[in-house]
Amino acid sequence: MAEKLDLISKCVRTFQDFPTKGILFYDICPILKDPKALAAVTDLFEEHVRHTYPQVDLIVGLDARGFLFGPLLAQRLGVGFVPIRKKGKLPGLTSSVAYGLEYGKAEAEMQEDAVSAGQKVLIIDDLLATGGTLHAACELIKHQKAELLGCLVVIELKFLNGSEKLQSTPVFSLIQY
Amino acid sequence: MAEKLDLISKCVRTFQDFPTKGILFYDICPILKDPKALAAVTDLFEEHVRHTYPQVDLIVGLDARGFLFGPLLAQRLGVGFVPIRKKGKLPGLTSSVAYGLEYGKAEAEMQEDAVSAGQKVLIIDDLLATGGTLHAACELIKHQKAELLGCLVVIELKFLNGSEKLQSTPVFSLIQY
Repeated sequence: MAEKLDLISKCVRTFQDFPTKGILFYDICPILKDPKALAAVTDLFEEHVRHTYPQVDLIVGLDARGFLFGPLLAQRLGVGFVPIRKKGKLPGLTSSVAYGLEYGKAEAEMQEDAVSAGQKVLIIDDLLATGGTLHAACELIKHQKAELLGCLVVIELKFLNGSEKLQSTPVFSLIQY
Repeated sequence: MAEKLDLISKCVRTFQDFPTKGILFYDICPILKDPKALAAVTDLFEEHVRHTYPQVDLIVGLDARGFLFGPLLAQRLGVGFVPIRKKGKLPGLTSSVAYGLEYGKAEAEMQEDAVSAGQKVLIIDDLLATGGTLHAACELIKHQKAELLGCLVVIELKFLNGSEKLQSTPVFSLIQY
């Protein structure tokens, strides 16, 4: 496990002042480009889920970087994947929840028939910062009366206290800063 | 193969007048939700690539729905995955190519260090319609002096002639309408 975490950590690089001044951006692209590092991410998520949540029905991933890791984990576990998207991208009956961004607002949206009452759900994304998007995703899952088990992220920016915003929902992160 | 294609086809559903009036939207979400269907998509892509392109260095996927299928294929082949994103999402040195949408314009962007000269590249997305986004992605790969082998899509809307726009770049699609 330590070896895998080391490999993943070495693939994360930072960019100062992106996308705006004062922001230190954590770039996960080198993880995707190294097939061993991407396999290590999926291995560690899978180990954690099999150990902590032996019964999972669905992996829900966030637009767009959660899509990079979610289907890989869902396939390993043999369960379905459901996307939560930015408003206006999903056809059919949908639910949406607004959340605050640094500037202005955004909305997270999910198809109503994607998650059923009582299903055991894990949410996945690449990074937990202030927790706005993940919190909106949690609300969408709860609105469907599904059982939200927890959230999985590759990187957690601890100093932004995002997990506090998620209240009682447990967050599992591979790398913390 | 016919059985797998049948399973995938049954998971594609359509919505009339989404996102705007007159558009018939092909929804691939039920493929993601059925682990057997998603495995079938990856199986068929993998079979095609191993047979047609025994040497591939990178799978390049388009923001956002190409992210759902690309990392799965890249992991099966044991190669890296590179994202092409909407303008403004990727840090560091990037190249971008503008392309026309039904209303207005958009730009596809890639990190300059993501693809090297001479690397053998396949581009993946969920759907080929008019080919605007895929064509821009092809231009980005060629700009890096990489060897573009072809494009892979789950669904091809043949009546929109998108593959003509891609000129000499071969397109492989699982389902055609």
